[in-house]
Amino acid sequence: MRVAYNEQMTELADILGEMAGLAGKAMERATQSLLQADLRIAEQVIGDHDRMTELSATAEERAFALLALQAPVAGDLRSVVSGIQIVADIDRMGALALHVAKIARRRHPQHALPEEVNGYFAEMGRIAVALGASAREVLETRDPERAAKLREEDEAMDDLHKHLFSVLMDREWSHGVAAAVDVTLLGRFYERFADHAVEVGRRVIFLVTGSLPSDLDSIPAK
Amino acid sequence: MRVAYNEQMTELADILGEMAGLAGKAMERATQSLLQADLRIAEQVIGDHDRMTELSATAEERAFALLALQAPVAGDLRSVVSGIQIVADIDRMGALALHVAKIARRRHPQHALPEEVNGYFAEMGRIAVALGASAREVLETRDPERAAKLREEDEAMDDLHKHLFSVLMDREWSHGVAAAVDVTLLGRFYERFADHAVEVGRRVIFLVTGSLPSDLDSIPAK
Repeated sequence: MRVAYNEQMTELADILGEMAGLAGKAMERATQSLLQADLRIAEQVIGDHDRMTELSATAEERAFALLALQAPVAGDLRSVVSGIQIVADIDRMGALALHVAKIARRRHPQHALPEEVNGYFAEMGRIAVALGASAREVLETRDPERAAKLREEDEAMDDLHKHLFSVLMDREWSHGVAAAVDVTLLGRFYERFADHAVEVGRRVIFLVTGSLPSDLDSIPAK
Repeated sequence: MRVAYNEQMTELADILGEMAGLAGKAMERATQSLLQADLRIAEQVIGDHDRMTELSATAEERAFALLALQAPVAGDLRSVVSGIQIVADIDRMGALALHVAKIARRRHPQHALPEEVNGYFAEMGRIAVALGASAREVLETRDPERAAKLREEDEAMDDLHKHLFSVLMDREWSHGVAAAVDVTLLGRFYERFADHAVEVGRRVIFLVTGSLPSDLDSIPAK
């Protein structure tokens, strides 16, 4: 029973790790397609998204099978249920990368972004990809201290997002309303991507320790 | 064992129903605060959100206890795990209503919305509240046919959201970039609120039938 549980749990963890890897890769490419107005890369991100949907379904099925056949308790039970919750977060990260690529595709051959904000999105993209990699690492190592650090990494994203809004709201903004709408949505997609990575970290802390450190208890609602 | 399971499952379902009710109420008031630039109501929505956070934590605890103590199988297992997934969706609906109220508060005593788009948001608010009520009804009745109808209700939201964007993108838009940014975010919050209600319906279909009807298999990623 125990051997079967361990084997199946490792399989589930591997799928989650693969999903986090895909989400990071998708956001990396989506950012590239956005910054370079590269239709081919945008299409690639959009086409690759099916794989994420497949893996989500597989991960959920595996987790259900684990619960039904092994009836895990205590820490094992937390691991499996947290795994199911983590699937939803990573799946959403993939969907957010997809949205970025879709905006790049919709505006092609134009650039969706005014040059003025390229730097913001290059940096937000970099942080998002780093957070994806951190989420993957945390899923693989299950290190709660490393998991708690995801929140610090997210602070840089929040700062950039705030600055971006002040650029948008500035009277000097000369790129029109349509570009402002795209920049608003894109900014939100990156910020939410980062939030979900932090949530993965939070769930790993819970699955390992059975509780949440007090400073992580109340992540401000965004 | 069976009696205990039924009792605890009913408790969990009651909490989920209460959460859906709160989310709908929050969105109703948030819309009111937005349309009337009513600070008092906005503050009320923001203050009431703690109750949603509490209920989410309670619902998750109950579900974990159920899994650990009753080790349910088959349909019972699906019910509990789906319950945990549904908590995340309804919690998010509450957070989105909170965001709406926060924008109303930030712009007070000004109106966040140009009068031109009030009608859109009155209608999006009405649909969101109806979807919240439907989600609650579906949680209580567990009627998969009723659950499938949530998707139809959401179509009206998607149409409104699209129209709203065409108003924004129109060259006639005379309300400036700051208002456009608010309208973009607000439109997205209502649309996502509706998506999560649809997702609740989808999960109820799964928990009752063990599978998803083919036309619901692939809800387009938004």
